[in-house]
Amino acid sequence: MNIGIVGLGLIGGSLGLKLQSLNHTVYGVTNNNFNEIKARERKLANIISQDYKVLENCSIIFLALPIKNLLNPSKNLIKAIPTKAILTDVGSVKVPIIETWEKIHDLFIGSHPMAGTEEKGVNAGKKELFDNSKWVITPTKQTDQNSLQTLSKLLKKMGCDIYFEKPVIHDQAVANISHLPIYLASSLIETAYCKNNKDLLNLSCKLAATGFSDTSRVGGGNPSLGIDLAENNTTNILNAIKIFKKNINELEKIFEHRDWDSLEEKLKKSQEWRKHFC
Amino acid sequence: MNIGIVGLGLIGGSLGLKLQSLNHTVYGVTNNNFNEIKARERKLANIISQDYKVLENCSIIFLALPIKNLLNPSKNLIKAIPTKAILTDVGSVKVPIIETWEKIHDLFIGSHPMAGTEEKGVNAGKKELFDNSKWVITPTKQTDQNSLQTLSKLLKKMGCDIYFEKPVIHDQAVANISHLPIYLASSLIETAYCKNNKDLLNLSCKLAATGFSDTSRVGGGNPSLGIDLAENNTTNILNAIKIFKKNINELEKIFEHRDWDSLEEKLKKSQEWRKHFC
Repeated sequence: MNIGIVGLGLIGGSLGLKLQSLNHTVYGVTNNNFNEIKARERKLANIISQDYKVLENCSIIFLALPIKNLLNPSKNLIKAIPTKAILTDVGSVKVPIIETWEKIHDLFIGSHPMAGTEEKGVNAGKKELFDNSKWVITPTKQTDQNSLQTLSKLLKKMGCDIYFEKPVIHDQAVANISHLPIYLASSLIETAYCKNNKDLLNLSCKLAATGFSDTSRVGGGNPSLGIDLAENNTTNILNAIKIFKKNINELEKIFEHRDWDSLEEKLKKSQEWRKHFC
Repeated sequence: MNIGIVGLGLIGGSLGLKLQSLNHTVYGVTNNNFNEIKARERKLANIISQDYKVLENCSIIFLALPIKNLLNPSKNLIKAIPTKAILTDVGSVKVPIIETWEKIHDLFIGSHPMAGTEEKGVNAGKKELFDNSKWVITPTKQTDQNSLQTLSKLLKKMGCDIYFEKPVIHDQAVANISHLPIYLASSLIETAYCKNNKDLLNLSCKLAATGFSDTSRVGGGNPSLGIDLAENNTTNILNAIKIFKKNINELEKIFEHRDWDSLEEKLKKSQEWRKHFC
């Protein structure tokens, strides 16, 4: 198949490498000279251009762009997408992207690969990123069933486990398991970085071990991702923060009353429940 | 040297293996037949017994016991410690342990190895546990300086980086970087485990990836450790929870007002600050 990829960063570049290895012809669109040269060097696609017109013969197109670009697509991009092309995106929030793109293109299907590394940009893509990874597809009433089948087959060939879910449920789930942890980890770092108590801060920095490192990891990531998610999944994340706050308030009361029976109950539950996630 | 170890679990067993490899003669005390047999099989010490009397010729003794046992030591243990032996512990909270043991033994020095794995018990010890690890010693006005030097030299020979700090500062630091993360991770799991919304819970469990796994890891640990720490470092942990709550309340307001400039400031700070810890 002729497959188009708009954006050759971590996800787009990885898609390009993988799809070429499956003998598809990949047309990649980048946004500047530096990326175009780098993408050619790394052979991220068979044909690489800054001109959306290379998409004209593609039967499937992946929009591998940041959420904010997906929500404000350029007119040239919209014009360049062939009417018969199956179109999908890779954004980590689905409702606003689907609302935008179902109005633009009949054969649009929202989707979200649950794969990533800390890296980004044209150097980040790697062929094996999607091996045994999870990919969520979020069809709606408007979704064309033939397009859905074709897209699903392609993703399975790439080695992905596919999950189908309503866009609303998807956005709530990622708020809880993927977005909330970023803001908690950030608040944990802010708590531990007690800049008005130098002795305490010095020792804390020296002694921080794997427990702190793991719990805070996603709070040390790229701020622009945290803002992108916050702007586009605000209500679900706010709801998750409120439920989390309720749980933390309960913990505070437990400590105030030295109610260790209730603490034991909570810790036993979380030990048990975590097994369902990990 | 003749070195005694009371308790041959993860820390005590690892100490026994390491100290034997440095040509010390190690006397290990266990608390039941099963542990005694296992400890012999694993050669965790040169001499292994359930009788504290084996400590009589030891010049340094490590109390590798859980915090609650350190705070309520058996009379037989107290009697068996030679007056001239240097005595230390490995508990992760220092103030209450030092208050207890400085009254019992003149040559007591509080200390805390910052090494561990998820494992525990007589099968958990391993020789390399302390290689390049951090070990905090918390001397007080009462601490005997010769004993302090002898203990420090031994720990350095074992491959540990040693930090000296006041017991109060130590307990505040571990509350922030080591204990608080346990209760936050537990609350995150409780938040994500939305048992009244089956569809959401199912998808959340399927999609949880490394972000959730890392952030929640220490919330899935042994509940008895979380309770032990809570009981013995209550005030410091409660204080950490209150500061954390202040930060979470600020985040909630940021989301309510869609104040993304303030969010950017917070996320940039935490990205920068985390580098001081990890």
